[in-house]
Amino acid sequence: MNRQGKSTLVFNSKPRVIGNYSVVGPKEGRGNFAQYFDRILEDDTLGQPTYEKAECKLLELCIDGAISNAKLKPSQIDCMVAGDLMNQITSSSFAARSLNIPYLGVFGACSTMAESLMVGATLIDGKYANNVVCATVSHFSSAEKQFRYPLELGTQRPPTSQWTTTGSGATVLAQNSSGVAITSATIGKVADWNVTDVNNMGGAMAPAAFETLWQHLNDLSIEPDYYDLILTGDLGKLGSEVLIDLMENKGVHLGANYSDCGQMMFKNTQKVFMGASGCGCGASVLNSYVLQRLKNRTLKRVLFIATGALLSPLTCQQGESIPCIAHAVVLKGENYV
Amino acid sequence: MNRQGKSTLVFNSKPRVIGNYSVVGPKEGRGNFAQYFDRILEDDTLGQPTYEKAECKLLELCIDGAISNAKLKPSQIDCMVAGDLMNQITSSSFAARSLNIPYLGVFGACSTMAESLMVGATLIDGKYANNVVCATVSHFSSAEKQFRYPLELGTQRPPTSQWTTTGSGATVLAQNSSGVAITSATIGKVADWNVTDVNNMGGAMAPAAFETLWQHLNDLSIEPDYYDLILTGDLGKLGSEVLIDLMENKGVHLGANYSDCGQMMFKNTQKVFMGASGCGCGASVLNSYVLQRLKNRTLKRVLFIATGALLSPLTCQQGESIPCIAHAVVLKGENYV
Repeated sequence: MNRQGKSTLVFNSKPRVIGNYSVVGPKEGRGNFAQYFDRILEDDTLGQPTYEKAECKLLELCIDGAISNAKLKPSQIDCMVAGDLMNQITSSSFAARSLNIPYLGVFGACSTMAESLMVGATLIDGKYANNVVCATVSHFSSAEKQFRYPLELGTQRPPTSQWTTTGSGATVLAQNSSGVAITSATIGKVADWNVTDVNNMGGAMAPAAFETLWQHLNDLSIEPDYYDLILTGDLGKLGSEVLIDLMENKGVHLGANYSDCGQMMFKNTQKVFMGASGCGCGASVLNSYVLQRLKNRTLKRVLFIATGALLSPLTCQQGESIPCIAHAVVLKGENYV
Repeated sequence: MNRQGKSTLVFNSKPRVIGNYSVVGPKEGRGNFAQYFDRILEDDTLGQPTYEKAECKLLELCIDGAISNAKLKPSQIDCMVAGDLMNQITSSSFAARSLNIPYLGVFGACSTMAESLMVGATLIDGKYANNVVCATVSHFSSAEKQFRYPLELGTQRPPTSQWTTTGSGATVLAQNSSGVAITSATIGKVADWNVTDVNNMGGAMAPAAFETLWQHLNDLSIEPDYYDLILTGDLGKLGSEVLIDLMENKGVHLGANYSDCGQMMFKNTQKVFMGASGCGCGASVLNSYVLQRLKNRTLKRVLFIATGALLSPLTCQQGESIPCIAHAVVLKGENYV
């Protein structure tokens, strides 16, 4: 079996990252990762008449960038595995239309980057495809409109809220003799600890991150210090603290090797309360800062845990709590594979 | 490589169907497949306070049925691959919460059953999982409400319209020495031939079915008569005719071995114009009629092509045409593997 423990897929052929790219909006471009992003937009509408079309264009740009970075053409990509937050994941489907690549739509809310990498790595490792591109996107304005309030209302944001990242990340995977490798991945279960506050996504998602991290460590019989970076997608300040507490309760200390993309994305002066969120958050940080550090060998082994809140506005209106999920992917620098 | 041609995955270990189940609503239970469905509901609310919760319950029931049919318990299933039409595929995510199975959410609109089988077969064939359940669901009332008009309006249906199936289908895949096998699958590309009429889904989706069928036949160097059944998911009467015409234009005749689940689901007296639609349409027919006939050897080789329209109400309101996709899966009776 190419599996260890209950839920961890092991990719023995070690699919490699042969291309990656990140594109973010102007606000993200003034944040902590500015020097790492491949492209920072000056105009977050990308010249499109609606924010939904802008989001789709953002994903297209990013996937195109990753494919170019891999020195390939879209016609050489066997499959695009992508998803996003829009109803019916239209940003991904419309991008797949423009790019004209065989397409598998996936949905894991803000866990989508990890899910797409997991499915992509399976296709490469199982020798079903030569080149796969894995991607996701989110846009502050389309997400606010769909999940919260019209921007024009100028609604006050509560202190536990996070700021949806305008950004996209894309990774091209292939069989290759060198490069950063994806060596394993843990499929998450839905975790719902009865949080109903849609303005506290970090609190809702932390238990999912905890359960997947716990499962992953047990499946592989390792301790957190096996990784020099354990990186959650977008728990934000509050959610990260909850995760640290939950692990502490199990007697496991998450130390300086733990970080959260949502917490790190923006500067404190940018006034985003608990930090960033959105599937573009983890995706853009992974495909810039993290992959650069894996390539320049300042990082050896990274566990990327992307978390998603699987709610819809309607399920909240109908009184449901927020089911969440986290998928984890292991990336290793080429000398540590 | 475990691939043939550009887009066809080949599953050399031949993952088997070890369990399957279908549940449909009362109207579907008066249709042409009544004798084949595992369970016909008397009450399409399933005792739930909303149609969305009913849809979720329907999927849960169906997955539970398939797992029981495989003589397994939910805790023995390594992964649930599922999706649906609701915004943020909440029916699947909430069902995954109840079932407590590691979960990969997928979205291909009404092509979801084929996509979930393809991902599931990859996990089994690549030895990443022992048992995987693949499933989807749709519900007439939740779909009308989300995509069209409130039912209470009593809006007239145009003559090209189709009736969203209230139904679900689930398949358990595993390595096994006997049983119906999934031997290959073709990943679709997005096809958009500029149809903008949201009341003519069959017409919009037919080109996607055509492109995937054409790709599949070329990838495997076979003719349509290799299959004793080529079955599209929910093109309906009009869409099926368009597909037959498109193939005819290429010099390929789709004969008596071609059928469409949407066209066959209801009796002519049930007044549904072009027939049935919805991801539950192909899923429930595949997991009842088709699998029964493969098991009792009245069918040998089946090509199941599920088609999906990847629009959202918002993309239509913003003037977009309807991008569509079709994924194809090959099922073979155990004597023909």
